[in-house]
Amino acid sequence: MAEHSNIYELGLDRNPANFVQLTPLSFIERTASVYPDLQAVSYGEVRRSWAETYARTRRLASALVGRGIGKGDTVSVVAANIPEMFEAHFGVPMSGAVLNTINTRLDAEAIAFILDHAEAKVLLVDPEFSEVVDRAVKIAHRPEMLVVDIEDPSFEGGSRIGRLTYEDLLAEGDPDFAWSLPGSEWDAISLNYTSGTTGDPKGVVYHHRGAALNAMSNIMTWGMGQHSHYLWTLPMFHCNGWCFPWTIAANAGLCVCLRAVRPEPIFQLIRDEKVTHFCGAPIVLQMLVNAPDALKDFTHEVKVMTAGAPPPAAVIANMEAMGVEVTQVYGLTETYGPSVVSAWQSKWDGVDADQRSRLKARQGVRNIALDGLMVADPETLAPLPADGRTIGEIFMRGNNVMRGYLKNPTASAKAFKGGWFASGDLGVMHPDGYVEIKDRSKDIIISGGENISSVEVEDVLYRHPDVMEAAVVARPDEKWGETPCAFITVKPGRSLTAEEMTEFCRQHMARFKVPKTFIFDELPKTSTGKIQKFMLRDRAKALNS
Amino acid sequence: MAEHSNIYELGLDRNPANFVQLTPLSFIERTASVYPDLQAVSYGEVRRSWAETYARTRRLASALVGRGIGKGDTVSVVAANIPEMFEAHFGVPMSGAVLNTINTRLDAEAIAFILDHAEAKVLLVDPEFSEVVDRAVKIAHRPEMLVVDIEDPSFEGGSRIGRLTYEDLLAEGDPDFAWSLPGSEWDAISLNYTSGTTGDPKGVVYHHRGAALNAMSNIMTWGMGQHSHYLWTLPMFHCNGWCFPWTIAANAGLCVCLRAVRPEPIFQLIRDEKVTHFCGAPIVLQMLVNAPDALKDFTHEVKVMTAGAPPPAAVIANMEAMGVEVTQVYGLTETYGPSVVSAWQSKWDGVDADQRSRLKARQGVRNIALDGLMVADPETLAPLPADGRTIGEIFMRGNNVMRGYLKNPTASAKAFKGGWFASGDLGVMHPDGYVEIKDRSKDIIISGGENISSVEVEDVLYRHPDVMEAAVVARPDEKWGETPCAFITVKPGRSLTAEEMTEFCRQHMARFKVPKTFIFDELPKTSTGKIQKFMLRDRAKALNS
Repeated sequence: MAEHSNIYELGLDRNPANFVQLTPLSFIERTASVYPDLQAVSYGEVRRSWAETYARTRRLASALVGRGIGKGDTVSVVAANIPEMFEAHFGVPMSGAVLNTINTRLDAEAIAFILDHAEAKVLLVDPEFSEVVDRAVKIAHRPEMLVVDIEDPSFEGGSRIGRLTYEDLLAEGDPDFAWSLPGSEWDAISLNYTSGTTGDPKGVVYHHRGAALNAMSNIMTWGMGQHSHYLWTLPMFHCNGWCFPWTIAANAGLCVCLRAVRPEPIFQLIRDEKVTHFCGAPIVLQMLVNAPDALKDFTHEVKVMTAGAPPPAAVIANMEAMGVEVTQVYGLTETYGPSVVSAWQSKWDGVDADQRSRLKARQGVRNIALDGLMVADPETLAPLPADGRTIGEIFMRGNNVMRGYLKNPTASAKAFKGGWFASGDLGVMHPDGYVEIKDRSKDIIISGGENISSVEVEDVLYRHPDVMEAAVVARPDEKWGETPCAFITVKPGRSLTAEEMTEFCRQHMARFKVPKTFIFDELPKTSTGKIQKFMLRDRAKALNS
Repeated sequence: MAEHSNIYELGLDRNPANFVQLTPLSFIERTASVYPDLQAVSYGEVRRSWAETYARTRRLASALVGRGIGKGDTVSVVAANIPEMFEAHFGVPMSGAVLNTINTRLDAEAIAFILDHAEAKVLLVDPEFSEVVDRAVKIAHRPEMLVVDIEDPSFEGGSRIGRLTYEDLLAEGDPDFAWSLPGSEWDAISLNYTSGTTGDPKGVVYHHRGAALNAMSNIMTWGMGQHSHYLWTLPMFHCNGWCFPWTIAANAGLCVCLRAVRPEPIFQLIRDEKVTHFCGAPIVLQMLVNAPDALKDFTHEVKVMTAGAPPPAAVIANMEAMGVEVTQVYGLTETYGPSVVSAWQSKWDGVDADQRSRLKARQGVRNIALDGLMVADPETLAPLPADGRTIGEIFMRGNNVMRGYLKNPTASAKAFKGGWFASGDLGVMHPDGYVEIKDRSKDIIISGGENISSVEVEDVLYRHPDVMEAAVVARPDEKWGETPCAFITVKPGRSLTAEEMTEFCRQHMARFKVPKTFIFDELPKTSTGKIQKFMLRDRAKALNS
């Protein structure tokens, strides 16, 4: 029976009735059809239903097509988490074009680089960023690029720098525009530039299939019910908000927009808009924990996903004490945002709070869209022992791995190794299959030949009651090669000394891991709340000169 | 800008790191890896974890491959909802073969027809059905077919008819078998024969892609949390249990098996196994409603999906009074089971119980996997007005529409019309986009030139407090062409007369719709609980002779 005649290959081919390209655009079309008058978007005074929002996205697609934009073109956006940014996640790909959301904290040069590299044909601009974008447009070599001003009555300041407003553009479009599904689910849907601390940013290309699958995976990973209320504390420009614009459309939820990530509006919206889910970096969680108790007045169930850095155990414990269930996720721009989740096991239900936080601080296991996850030797790709100690590189494989880097075959080839995506992150696999990051390679401190995980040291620092934020980097040392150098922000009204912290660390970690240097200061951060360790490394290096 | 040079098509191709075939087999692999010691299966005394269940499915796949079974081969099963049936949903396709679950209520001739038509290479047999299957095997022309006896210590009776037992077969296999994902997500995963009341049954072919997407859609449509406990009141042989074996694997739930669908074990399992979800025909719901109140002792949240016939409003109201939330779904074998759902709208929350039941009795809207749903002219395919009155044929389109009928290109060609699947069901589209079935074409009664929906008349009959079950069919009539003829089963201890029912009907429907004939008797049913109207039609016809 080596060869079979296969009765299942006869006359059972694809046809338009039984094969449809997978795309998250189908989600908004279905939701607008099934729940037309259900509220879709909330932002200040703005309230729009799914029918209204869908009509606006169709207008946007129609207007773009009317202006000659289509498949393979790039439409860039520089915007906060406002309704127009949400709409662009649908309207732009409905036109056939690719959505390129740009990090709003970049300087004019970096934005200009992206506009040039992405060959942007259209640029939508939020007034909050009009000044820096205006400079970027002048630097960039895109004379034909159509610049469109988004207007926001609730924002004071900014100026018009484009040829027309976003509402003018929508007015050109047809609210009943008959857009098409992508010709192939492999077609590009979006382009996200990595924030790379060195070298030029790389443009990560997502496709419709991966976006649809990761958006659905968000629902299943989080056990999200239908009609969840999602608050935008995570920038939508960051990995397309981890695919949550498409997730909200899939589960017919409410998109609660938010311009400024501050505790007052966050807690107010959680209460008033009955927010059930939000995402954010650990630094956002830390900010909420440290907010005045009077603000924290909500009683319904709220869940938060956090990623971007391993959340300190104390932050997890404090969030949960506040009534917010914390799930850590992990991923990269290259994996559509979170593709790994620190899945809770019911067998752990009885563990104490400390153990609970430690378990939740591990990055975890595959989400349902990710096919493979391993910790392996970066050269041979041989999986390393799942012993919780052997450090290797984290590799992923699945439909939520990027197509590659735009116009950068060298970087793409380097990222894909032997059927896997090489994350560049270092970690261990625990015996139960959970991955734990032990640092980006550059975050490992090698002191006297011993590897020290800066994350591990930071985790201890965060347990001190007076520590607000902490980051540990390598400081060059003649004798030891490197020593750990800790940067700490002290909580308001508290004070700390290097002696106190040294003593605290000695009680909680091996002697060789205790930072030799403590510096008390504000920490520099990226727009996504990641502490900018490269700046701290420079400062640590400068201490020796 | 008519032609674009497309930067997104350069060097961004599929590779093994970023493209993986979609299949529900990935779900069990992931769940067994992430939750190895979580309970997967419960059946009588049997308790198995996900690791154990996955190892058994790998053994099954390995043993089948060892016996020369592979891609394009058919493995048939005749079994109740027992663990081995669940395992077959994974182990068989892991071998590359196609799973063919056969309706357990069929007679030997019909089973033999299926074995021959499917060219079955292996047949797994539950002892409950050994006698009829033994006869079928003798009728069929499959001398090489390997017959395997499933043993069930909790079942008394049956005899061994095969060459080895299921456990013998598993013992031949490797629990660590390195099975492969399908070569293409379009490959066949299962084969389900329609129960067609006339002519030979047709073999509906499902593929991996559709099975994965409909399984995920079940989670999202129902807002199922992770680790749901699913009770098997719906036959797994019926559209692969509406894809729920794969859904349970995807959400790492508990598969609560059940041989006999009776109220006592159902209520006992709901209580003891903390069942959160189950499915069943309206007749199953009616049976539960009519069970002694003493049995109904559970307090946790339970949800039921019902389909197969429009549930009478009274059944919905009574289930919900019992604390079980009812969602009606609709579909056909050709659409992987349910592809349409009577989605609840929060704007209806305030309606009274009667209106609530009526809303829930409509078949509804697309599930998230279905791309298109319309009520159209069966000839021209022109969509008909969404006025809730104009009757047309229901058409579907999407990734959860079958590949076609096995070895039946004529039937396949007839089913696919102009990019749509023709369901053969007649219905209306309401102004809010909800579809409501007004009967299979053969269930419409035409009396004096007026169309009478038998469903509509049945709905009224069910509202009578003494009616247990009801079915209405056409009775030939010289004057009127046809008249409605009602068959009614009266509740135990109650009695009814034709006069009483006529009076009741006159109060609740137009005079021309009131059945002219009432017959009080047991109703003949299919294995899936559908009332066999063709038998009632024969009886109605015989009344005139």
